[in-house]
Parts: sequence; structure tokens; C-alpha cells
Amino acid sequence: MTTPWQQRYAQRMKWMGSSIIRELLKLTERPDIISFAGGLPAAETFPVAEFKTATQEVLTQHGSKALQYSTTEGYPPLREYIVQRMARYGITAAPENVLITSGSQQALDVIGKVLINPGDQILTEQPTYVGALQAWKAYQAEFVTVPVDEYGLCTSQLEEAVCCGPKFMYILPNFQNPAGVTLTLPRRQKLLALADQYGIPIIEDDPYGQLRYEGEHLPPLVVLDNEQLEHRAHSNGHGFMSGNVIYISTFSKILSPGLRLGWMVAPQDVISRCVMAKQGMDLHTSSFVQMVAHEVIKDGFIDGHVQFIRQLYRQRRDVMLAALEREFPPGIEWTRPAGGLFLWVTLPPEVDTTLLLEKAIVEKVAYVPGSAFDPSGGSRNTFRLNFSNARPEEIETGIRRLARVIERALSETEAPAPIVTDVQLVGTH
Amino acid sequence: MTTPWQQRYAQRMKWMGSSIIRELLKLTERPDIISFAGGLPAAETFPVAEFKTATQEVLTQHGSKALQYSTTEGYPPLREYIVQRMARYGITAAPENVLITSGSQQALDVIGKVLINPGDQILTEQPTYVGALQAWKAYQAEFVTVPVDEYGLCTSQLEEAVCCGPKFMYILPNFQNPAGVTLTLPRRQKLLALADQYGIPIIEDDPYGQLRYEGEHLPPLVVLDNEQLEHRAHSNGHGFMSGNVIYISTFSKILSPGLRLGWMVAPQDVISRCVMAKQGMDLHTSSFVQMVAHEVIKDGFIDGHVQFIRQLYRQRRDVMLAALEREFPPGIEWTRPAGGLFLWVTLPPEVDTTLLLEKAIVEKVAYVPGSAFDPSGGSRNTFRLNFSNARPEEIETGIRRLARVIERALSETEAPAPIVTDVQLVGTH
Repeated sequence: MTTPWQQRYAQRMKWMGSSIIRELLKLTERPDIISFAGGLPAAETFPVAEFKTATQEVLTQHGSKALQYSTTEGYPPLREYIVQRMARYGITAAPENVLITSGSQQALDVIGKVLINPGDQILTEQPTYVGALQAWKAYQAEFVTVPVDEYGLCTSQLEEAVCCGPKFMYILPNFQNPAGVTLTLPRRQKLLALADQYGIPIIEDDPYGQLRYEGEHLPPLVVLDNEQLEHRAHSNGHGFMSGNVIYISTFSKILSPGLRLGWMVAPQDVISRCVMAKQGMDLHTSSFVQMVAHEVIKDGFIDGHVQFIRQLYRQRRDVMLAALEREFPPGIEWTRPAGGLFLWVTLPPEVDTTLLLEKAIVEKVAYVPGSAFDPSGGSRNTFRLNFSNARPEEIETGIRRLARVIERALSETEAPAPIVTDVQLVGTH
Repeated sequence: MTTPWQQRYAQRMKWMGSSIIRELLKLTERPDIISFAGGLPAAETFPVAEFKTATQEVLTQHGSKALQYSTTEGYPPLREYIVQRMARYGITAAPENVLITSGSQQALDVIGKVLINPGDQILTEQPTYVGALQAWKAYQAEFVTVPVDEYGLCTSQLEEAVCCGPKFMYILPNFQNPAGVTLTLPRRQKLLALADQYGIPIIEDDPYGQLRYEGEHLPPLVVLDNEQLEHRAHSNGHGFMSGNVIYISTFSKILSPGLRLGWMVAPQDVISRCVMAKQGMDLHTSSFVQMVAHEVIKDGFIDGHVQFIRQLYRQRRDVMLAALEREFPPGIEWTRPAGGLFLWVTLPPEVDTTLLLEKAIVEKVAYVPGSAFDPSGGSRNTFRLNFSNARPEEIETGIRRLARVIERALSETEAPAPIVTDVQLVGTH
């Protein structure tokens, strides 16, 4: 039931498309379904008591300020906190390099608004975060992709892709969403060298960097980029944020996603332009939310809290990996993430995981089909599993159900051919 | 200090431009300046105690939910509340017609994203809300303007402007920002008839509709549009939201702007598309903020609160109007708003209020120059005054200072010629 003007204007709205996957995923919200589809943190990690204390404190001490308009850049003590926290990871920024955003999703939208012209090419990993695709398709971006394998982005294929002149490269180096893989140090260096050589900025999206369950922390791209530029004396003399990397992160996975609180770090000139863009988008991120979050975290709360989250999610990851090992039929591969929230499953090429999802929902289990994460619409025989939001016993039951669905699907198709895909993944049965 | 890629990409960022006014307004944040520049509600209206109770209640009863991801459409009880509240003003919508946004500013951005193609014409009032211009310039919109006078948009000039084929019309019918004028009922009807005749949708922005200090409430455009369509049997049979008007409003002026909480009401098909757009923008508006706001207002709080705000702002408006009458030199005009937060001053045409602002700041008083609100860069001899945020004695002192600045400027220019401007405004000295 649309009016004449809606019919006339439908053209413009086309980029949003319809989505079978979106419709299917709505079904997964039924309480009887064990869903590995979302990217939800475990609600039991939310520090409700701390929020209760913090809201009273903020409203008692600074009620007028918390409920009033504030500056687009963000609450100064929160920007300062972020600078201090990032310094531990070697990111040397000043508060002027930090913009507070309404979740890191908004940072992606701001970047689209400031950088993308219709028809611009964006280089992404294949697969990549679906929210970035959604944000940038609205600016009529096009996508060129480079596959990931167990070591992250396949940098050996990068130079060829870079030659097409992408506007920027979008990289999730740590425990990538959706594949769960981590970019190795040599590949980070290769990526940055190419970025510098071709003068192409990198958007480094790092929502899970602090959620590592094993192995050594690797330096963020923004840190390595800065070192590289300092060696070449390209530095602006302040020693920070003069390079090719825009870094974005979020409080969603280490505090609460319901706040909608993230940030971006970039050269000051870029931040100024992003501030102007954000002004037209929502004026500023909720002052109340910013001040309450700062009150919760200002005295070191995140340190212990992140340890607690790591322990919980590590256990769930282990339970899921063990269940996959035990339950899944032969011929299926999956990644073994060293951190984050997700792992990635590759079925024999003849299986379409979007079709399979309908059957999974009947068996009361759900995932996100891989094609959702692939700008080129490929990866049809893959899916993403989230392990942070289900309890261990649910994970075991859910994987058992899923194994049954897959077994049935495989028995209905021909005997599987040898698996050859663009994405080489670790962990076979 | 910019990197090579920043220099290369500066082109794209041009729409944000530099702004002398923005730079000047930064100076007005100095505590010794009496600023009539902002659009801030009075902090003494913020219900801090109610927020303290509500946050405890929400976190105790629904902590996990308030801190978790939620749906893009918004918190269902809040959408239901908005439906109920709007029904009092004759707006008959279902929850499916309501999208919760991060302030009404985000509604403007969503609309830009869903509707505007580069080069599209948008019809606005002259002057109009600067945040709408900012939001839509980012989508490379162009603007065609129709002046306002003391009765609101000059609908006699509308048909000529509509013939250029604007994508939509953007109208603030009540206590317009910045001019403070209200669109009369006959003009509302004329506007809607033209919208229907030419099939051009209207964005009705109504942040102040509940803040009327005198006179009769006028029906919103969305209500009149619906009546018009029902008479012509264009209705979809449900009796609501099938017409030409998208209505947007906000909790900023009746509860707290620091929350960043607004909403839009539109045909369901439009809302669906806006939901998809918003998903790529910030996933959803803070669940915590939505649930706390709902907790504060759910049992009728707004009713009494709006009365309190009306009383406070009515007094401040009266103090400002009396001070203008008393202090301002002859040859100056201003509007006498029946509600809202702003009034609009017109100086003799030879005075440039952007240049004058520098002198005003020296005298420790500030306003926003009219050219900021004029897409065509005109209105150079006008400025906007806010009367909600300063205490009565500050208003008197500030207007006295401003009168002195203006007197000096007038004495430095030639004797003023008769005033002829596009915008005919009420209230002369």
C-alpha cells in the first residue's frame, strides 16, 4: 500500500534491497531456537550493579550536564580515557584524534559520508563484516575483495586488487568478523607497505582486540603504520596519527552494546571533517550514556572485567570447537579463532547454506549464511557461528542439531567432490 | 599537517566547507558571554530525580535487556507510548508507523539517505533549520527556498517553486526554527493541496509543537493531510499514514536533549526502508536510553512537565520581548513567537550580522547570524535569538548589551534606507 510519491521514489531506495537472510533471521528470535546467528555478548557479563551506582553518581553530581546537549566530539574525560587505554596497546593519540561515535557502526557510516563518492571501489576482506557493506552501499560504493585464509587477508593477492585504485581498504585484523581469523605480523607489514606505496588509507576495525584467549597480542595496524612512517621520517613530529590508518573500536564487546558507544582515531584533520559529518547525523552521542560509561570505567574497571569476559568466552569457544569435532560429519572445515566471538564453517561446495538455514530453523538451530558477508555474493557453502551468547549446554545441543541438519543435506546431495574454495580455512574433521 | 591521501580526498569533503559562523560560535561558549546563540533547553527543566528513580528501576528489573543489543525499530513500549501521545494531537498511527531515532537530527539524516540523490532539489522555508541543511548537503542536495512571513511559509509563492520538481518539502509549521513563526491553518491547507496535486511529500518537523504559550493549537500537517485524503477516498482503509507527510519530533525539548531521542512517523513501507537505512547508521538507538526515558514518562509525567516548561519559557519570551521593545533602536523588526524557543530579528539591510557578531562577542553577548539558516546565503541582516536558556536577568542584560552593539553599528553606517526584505516580519519598534 504505497502512495504515488513512494512508487516514484522507490528507485533511490533500491540499494537497501530485500534480503531472504534478514527474513529468515527474524525467525531465529523465537525462544525455542538455539541461535548462533547473532553477534550478541553474553548478558551475564553486563555490569548491572556498576551501572546502577554510576547512574546515581552521574545524575547526582552532573545531572544537568548529562541531560543537556553536548559537543559533537564527545565527552572530554571519555576521550581522555580512550587515549590512556589505547596507549597500552601502543596507540599514541591525543584526545583531538578521538571522535566518540554511537557505536562503531556509526564510525563506519561517518567514514562513508566523508570519503565515499558514488561508484568508488572499497577493498574489503572476503568475507567481511556485513554492517560495513550495509553502511557503504548506501553511499553507492562498489566492492573489490581479497580472500582471507587462516592467517587473515591473503596479502599475496593484495597488490593486484590495489591496482584497481580503491578509495580505502577495510580490514578487521583481529579475530575477524565473520571468519574468526587473525592477520599475522608479516602480513600486517606487507599490507601497510602496500598502503603506503599506493597512498591508500586503511580502516582498521578492531571491536574484539582485547578479547584474545590464547597466543600473543599483535600490534594494531595503526601502530605499525606509525613506526613505518617514523622510520621514513614522514612523521609530523608529534609522533602520532599522521599516517594511513583510521582505527575504530567500541565498548560493545567489553562493556555493553546497548549503550551504542564506540570511537574512531584518526589524523586531526580527518577527525575535524568527521565531526562536521556527525553533527548532521545525530548532533552528538548521548551525553548521558557517555558520562555513565565513563563513570563505570574510569577507575580501572575494564581491566578485571575483560579478564572475566575472556575466561567465559574462551570456555564457550572450547565447548563449541569440541562439539564440532565430535558431532560434525567428515568433509567440513572450520576456523579455530584465538579470540573474538565467531568461527566460520565451510561445507562442501554443493551445499547452499541459505537454503540449509530453513531446515536448520525447523530443527531449532540457527547461524548466518556466509553469502551475507560476501560483497560478491559468493561463499554460499559457508556460515558463521557465534559462541559468546549461548551457554555451554546450549552450544552442545545446538551443534548436535546442526550436525544432524548437515548430515541430512549431505546425504541428499551427490558424494562431495574435493573441496576447493577461495577461502582456505583451518580445522578439518 | 595532512597525509597524501587526505590531500587527494579533500574534494569529497568539500560539502562540509569551512564556517566563519561556526568558529565565532565556539567563542560564545566562554562563561562570561550571555549567549542567545544555542538552542538549549533550560537545564532547570531536566527531571533529574525522576531519572534517578527510572535508571534504578530499569537496571533492577531489566538490566540485561537495557544493556544488550536491541531492534532497529526501537523499544516496543516506547513506540506504543508515542502512538498514544500523538493520538491526542489527532495523529492516528500504529507502532509500525513509528521509528525511534537518535534525536530528530537522525531522522533528517535517515530521510536524506533514503530519498536524496545527488543534485536533487529540496524545497525549504527561508530561513530554515540549519541542521537539516547540514544533513542533506552531505547527500549533495540542492535547495530551493520559499520565504516565511509572520504567518509562516508564503504559500502564495509556493506553486512557482514546486514547479521546479523538488524531491520533498521541509516544513517546520510550529514556532519555526529560526524565525519563531507559525503556519496558519489556511496556509497549511494550501500547502497540503499543492503537495497532493504535485505528488510531493512533506517532511513535517515538529520539535516544539507541545510548547505553545498562547493561542489555539493548530492541527499538524500529517493530520490535515490524512483528512484531505480521506475525503478523496485515497485512504488505505486503516485511516492512518497513507499520505504525503512524514512527521518527525523529539524528546529533546520536553524531556532531555542529552538522551538523543526522537522519532519519525511515516507510512509503513517508508518506515521499513528507513529501518534498513538506520541499521547501517548505528544499528539502533541506545536501548538503555530508550528504556530509561520510557520509565520516566510512561505514567503521564510529560503532561505536568510540559506545563512547567511552558510557564518558564513563556516568562522568558515575555522578558525578552519587553527588553527588545525597551532597548532596541528604531528601524529594527522582530517576530513575536507564540511558542518554541526562538525569535528572529531583522536589522536594516546595510548591516551584516556575521560581521556584527564579532563586535557582539567583544561586548559579551551572542546570537546566530541569519545567513546560517539561509540555503541561498541571504538573510545577512538578520539573526536568531534563543530565549529558553538564559535566566530573566541575563536576558535583560544581554539584550541591553546587544542594543548597544547595534546602535554603534547603525551610527557607523549611512542613515538606513527603507527596509525591504523577502521576509516580512512582525513586531517593529
